[in-house]
Amino acid sequence: MRTVDLIVKKRKGEALEQEEIEFLVQNYVEGRIPDYQMAAFCMAVYFQGMNTAEVAQLTMAMAHSGEMVDLAPITGVKVDKHSTGGVADTTTLVLGPLVAAAGVPMAKMSGRGLGHTGGTIDKLESIPGFQTTLSREAFIKQVNELKIALVGQSGNLVPADKKLYALRDVTGTVPSIPLIASSIMSKKIAAGADKLVLDVKVGSGAFMKKKEDAIALAETMVQIGEQVGRETVALVTSMEEPLGTAIGNALEVEEAILVLQGQKQGALRELCLLLGAEILVLTGRVRDRQEGRTLLENLLISGAALEKFVALVAAQGGNPAVAQDTSLLPQAAGQEVVQALPEQEGYVAAIDAERLGVAAMTLGAGRAEKDDPIDLAVGMKLHVRQGDRVTAGQPLATLYYNKREKLEQALKLVRPAFRFSQTPVAPEPLVYALVTKKGVTALNGHSL
Amino acid sequence: MRTVDLIVKKRKGEALEQEEIEFLVQNYVEGRIPDYQMAAFCMAVYFQGMNTAEVAQLTMAMAHSGEMVDLAPITGVKVDKHSTGGVADTTTLVLGPLVAAAGVPMAKMSGRGLGHTGGTIDKLESIPGFQTTLSREAFIKQVNELKIALVGQSGNLVPADKKLYALRDVTGTVPSIPLIASSIMSKKIAAGADKLVLDVKVGSGAFMKKKEDAIALAETMVQIGEQVGRETVALVTSMEEPLGTAIGNALEVEEAILVLQGQKQGALRELCLLLGAEILVLTGRVRDRQEGRTLLENLLISGAALEKFVALVAAQGGNPAVAQDTSLLPQAAGQEVVQALPEQEGYVAAIDAERLGVAAMTLGAGRAEKDDPIDLAVGMKLHVRQGDRVTAGQPLATLYYNKREKLEQALKLVRPAFRFSQTPVAPEPLVYALVTKKGVTALNGHSL
Repeated sequence: MRTVDLIVKKRKGEALEQEEIEFLVQNYVEGRIPDYQMAAFCMAVYFQGMNTAEVAQLTMAMAHSGEMVDLAPITGVKVDKHSTGGVADTTTLVLGPLVAAAGVPMAKMSGRGLGHTGGTIDKLESIPGFQTTLSREAFIKQVNELKIALVGQSGNLVPADKKLYALRDVTGTVPSIPLIASSIMSKKIAAGADKLVLDVKVGSGAFMKKKEDAIALAETMVQIGEQVGRETVALVTSMEEPLGTAIGNALEVEEAILVLQGQKQGALRELCLLLGAEILVLTGRVRDRQEGRTLLENLLISGAALEKFVALVAAQGGNPAVAQDTSLLPQAAGQEVVQALPEQEGYVAAIDAERLGVAAMTLGAGRAEKDDPIDLAVGMKLHVRQGDRVTAGQPLATLYYNKREKLEQALKLVRPAFRFSQTPVAPEPLVYALVTKKGVTALNGHSL
Repeated sequence: MRTVDLIVKKRKGEALEQEEIEFLVQNYVEGRIPDYQMAAFCMAVYFQGMNTAEVAQLTMAMAHSGEMVDLAPITGVKVDKHSTGGVADTTTLVLGPLVAAAGVPMAKMSGRGLGHTGGTIDKLESIPGFQTTLSREAFIKQVNELKIALVGQSGNLVPADKKLYALRDVTGTVPSIPLIASSIMSKKIAAGADKLVLDVKVGSGAFMKKKEDAIALAETMVQIGEQVGRETVALVTSMEEPLGTAIGNALEVEEAILVLQGQKQGALRELCLLLGAEILVLTGRVRDRQEGRTLLENLLISGAALEKFVALVAAQGGNPAVAQDTSLLPQAAGQEVVQALPEQEGYVAAIDAERLGVAAMTLGAGRAEKDDPIDLAVGMKLHVRQGDRVTAGQPLATLYYNKREKLEQALKLVRPAFRFSQTPVAPEPLVYALVTKKGVTALNGHSL
């Protein structure tokens, strides 16, 4: 088998065989296929795509390129949740304890990652004492006893994806649905998931800007799940404005706690209920979504979800008092309120999530490069949402900063992130579509 | 400027600016852009193409990536001829002396190349004593005095093309018209040509298999010529069967001598007259093609073309007696005649040029790798052409070999290269189209 022949085959739009895909992935990981051939192959895939069988085979070849986590010692069906990434999206911190409180195991391994804020693991580290490293045995024991553990990814999971993503990033081949889908699915499968619930974001603050692309990505991942025996469902959700109201590490932990306390309504809570209901249905915990939603709402109201959060924090060495007193989280030295100007009186027409995310990263909340340090305390809170009526002087956002010069840079991004209208504006629905093995269902009056 | 942004721009189908193309070529040649980015770029060009301005800019950026030959000390307009490569095509050995005999300078630098036989330089070296290396001064002096010199390429001409072609070869990005056209044109421009006559081959024995692709390539090169001030015309010609009747190095020199002696008619002679007439028109030596053709035919009949060949051989140290006695050329040890079988009686339906070329290479006439040795004596002569009536026992080809085991391998390719029909077969026309700055003219009843 010659690599160039496989590149040409894909360039011509033909489907590769399983053994051909495995040849490419294995030899690339082991350094026998050079980057230049894989770069040409990725660009050919960008233009010619892959069929369902190919993308499923690619996913499994990537998943098997390194260690495969075995979660069999954990009792019950192991569901994982994945979001394609948005701004002010701390779903995992709410959803984990909430679903665990319903008795469904959440054995979650998260990354640190690049972006506007740190990853789930960084956020958790803003809780004093919280340990994100557990031995494999301790991790499994904790999930069996408590139904939840949240740890950092360890080991050599999916080296093919690490190498391939780094290559795609510098060769203009990131936005290819088969490559994105296989990247996401291979990591979840290598991490041991039996089933998957996906949150595919779309909008100005997401990687996918167009609904049809997001739905296509969701469909591809659901089809992969079907092909490889990991049942998968996906919600296609809006990232036209930030999901929650906090952007930053400790600030997002605080917001998650407020939701778990039952104090806070809004899009973050709603999305957690929707995703959580899917998880409960997938694991057979409930018969249908409505039953799942009611159960989860009751767990928020009763305090059971917050209690599970407290138990999780205590089990992993953190100070559980944060669940009642969020001032125990790292605090920034200064705050700066951005107010609506007189000429901005009217309605919030749009909030540019992407720009606010970059502002939070500018303040120090996220990493541009893999080894950048992050400042857990900084970030921002948003005080308005799309469609809100605003008057002059009304606070739009509060920035939390430790360095004055970074605040100045961030402010230049925050102010233009808000756009206003003289006439009322209808907010975007939170969820556009549900994608399951049965197909795509448009939600909230959205058309496909 | 970031390379990845230029890859994405091309991937999206946008046109690059001149400075962007120069950035890519210069930095790639100098090793600052890695192969994997250039591979992704080439694949994006494969799918998205380039407009006329881009491909002209790419051509000039490549031409200027190394040494540029200055032919200004040679009196007259310097025309170069280029063929995209076929089988049994020794046009240069006939055309050079023929055009020089008409008083038009032929300052020709040729390569050795890979393929079924050696390049023009290898063929010339089968003439005892012939020197293919001349100093720049001697080369120019000889062209001014004799109107012709044929030497090997020296110096660092178009390093960008060498590097890029090697990359394209292993990344499935060879068959891209903008990349092929800029590769050919950049080399001719760097070699000092003022004007160009191109022979774009199409058919089973050529790189281009489809007429529309060959015409598109011809048009692209003519447009490049127009954009960069090197007037270019192209003939699109058939490579459905071998052009001449000899495949091999010394065997092709022998055939060229027979044509120059006026002893041999057929497709090779015809193509030399057609290409030669274009050269005479382009340089202003004659008013039109008909006048050019008549002049060239007279030079063959009068012996002036053969006399020019004798003078060329003598000037470059070769034994001019070969022009009268081709047995002075290297001779193979053995000959094997392939005859028509009884069941093949009828008409020659097709002769697979590609397969016969590979057979000649198998005998040792060509190189598969750059430093392979070649055997100047071996190859084959063909005794039939498409459309010919054949009877059982009639010789189809004679193979000239030095090693018995290579003959056995070659025979396995030669026999199936001939296909037969019970009903008469009309041969393909030699020339399909003429492409000039005024557009494409279909010839010989071919439709565009």
